[in-house]
Amino acid sequence: MNDTASAPSARTRVRRVATNAHYHSTTLHAIIDDAYLCHIAFGDASGAHCIPTACWREGDYLYIHGSNGSRMLKRLMDGECCVTITHLDGLVLARSAFSHSMNYRSAMIYGRFEVVEGADARHAMEAFMEKLLPGRQADVRPGSDKEYAATTVMRIPLAEAACKVRTGPPNDDEEDLGWPAWAGVLPFARAHLPPVADAACTLEAPAYVRRWQQE
Amino acid sequence: MNDTASAPSARTRVRRVATNAHYHSTTLHAIIDDAYLCHIAFGDASGAHCIPTACWREGDYLYIHGSNGSRMLKRLMDGECCVTITHLDGLVLARSAFSHSMNYRSAMIYGRFEVVEGADARHAMEAFMEKLLPGRQADVRPGSDKEYAATTVMRIPLAEAACKVRTGPPNDDEEDLGWPAWAGVLPFARAHLPPVADAACTLEAPAYVRRWQQE
Repeated sequence: MNDTASAPSARTRVRRVATNAHYHSTTLHAIIDDAYLCHIAFGDASGAHCIPTACWREGDYLYIHGSNGSRMLKRLMDGECCVTITHLDGLVLARSAFSHSMNYRSAMIYGRFEVVEGADARHAMEAFMEKLLPGRQADVRPGSDKEYAATTVMRIPLAEAACKVRTGPPNDDEEDLGWPAWAGVLPFARAHLPPVADAACTLEAPAYVRRWQQE
Repeated sequence: MNDTASAPSARTRVRRVATNAHYHSTTLHAIIDDAYLCHIAFGDASGAHCIPTACWREGDYLYIHGSNGSRMLKRLMDGECCVTITHLDGLVLARSAFSHSMNYRSAMIYGRFEVVEGADARHAMEAFMEKLLPGRQADVRPGSDKEYAATTVMRIPLAEAACKVRTGPPNDDEEDLGWPAWAGVLPFARAHLPPVADAACTLEAPAYVRRWQQE
């Protein structure tokens, strides 16, 4: 179902199956918060590149980080890009071959990253750890000044974004409804397998590790 | 571990953590065959775009399809692009904050798509269905001439590609090995949830649907 908000720009207006478009920040935030990775498209002299990287959200920004030497981060300082997150939720089996589809939730964000520095960068990196595993930050050897100095944290505003979401059963054309093929959805989920302790680790697993399989 | 093949071009030579680079087609094919979706980066007058789309492989080509009216497919006919697939396999918990990582398998393919036409397009679309669910094609109402005429199938050669794979335990620096934090991997898997039959479907589920949860 479409929502009542409208596209923030011409390039975020969904044209294909526009009834699946969503422009509300609630949908956008939920899609980002369910992701560990995004794909970032940007161009340089050797063409267009599509690079996966870890991401997290705070407020109305999506954050990434990397080594100071990263070519991608350098290019992202110079110009605009497109950040995309996609969750695949199911295969949609219709009676006709061409009505088959997939259920998914995707978000595209256009704009320009800015570098986050100093205490804000430290705060952002700790928020990243907290997002990955609440409680983990307190247990680990914290980042040193040297490690922070070698790392670039960047963020992009979520102002120019669009989501596309498909849920629910297949949509066969009226004349195909009598075709004798099973119709429905085969859903996917991201499952957690049992934690694998490092061979050299003799410590008892903390609560956030023991909880991994219950989530 | 690195493999013995080398990068097919300057832009596919992995620079960051180059020991995780793989250039063999066996690795590339396995990453593509485990995917339902890829992200495609391409540029046009409004900037770089990163669009998710269904994909499949036959031989040394990656295939996609879409409506003839798709702006992305039109742009892909005009120039080069970058196709990326990423599987997230686990969170890697090290003793130090900055040694945390993720286990993943990713593939990047550079090049230019070409349109697949006529009998080859029909064959490719049937191969796509067979990849999604072996046995499904025989059950469904096949595509009509009109449906095929409205659909564009494209393929890109896998000649210029690189993979990056991280597996295994955390790599803490020697001096952090004594830090008292649990270390190990929290693995992900793509799980199959129970099939959801369409409300109007009274047919018994075929074998490939009943098998869904055992796979």
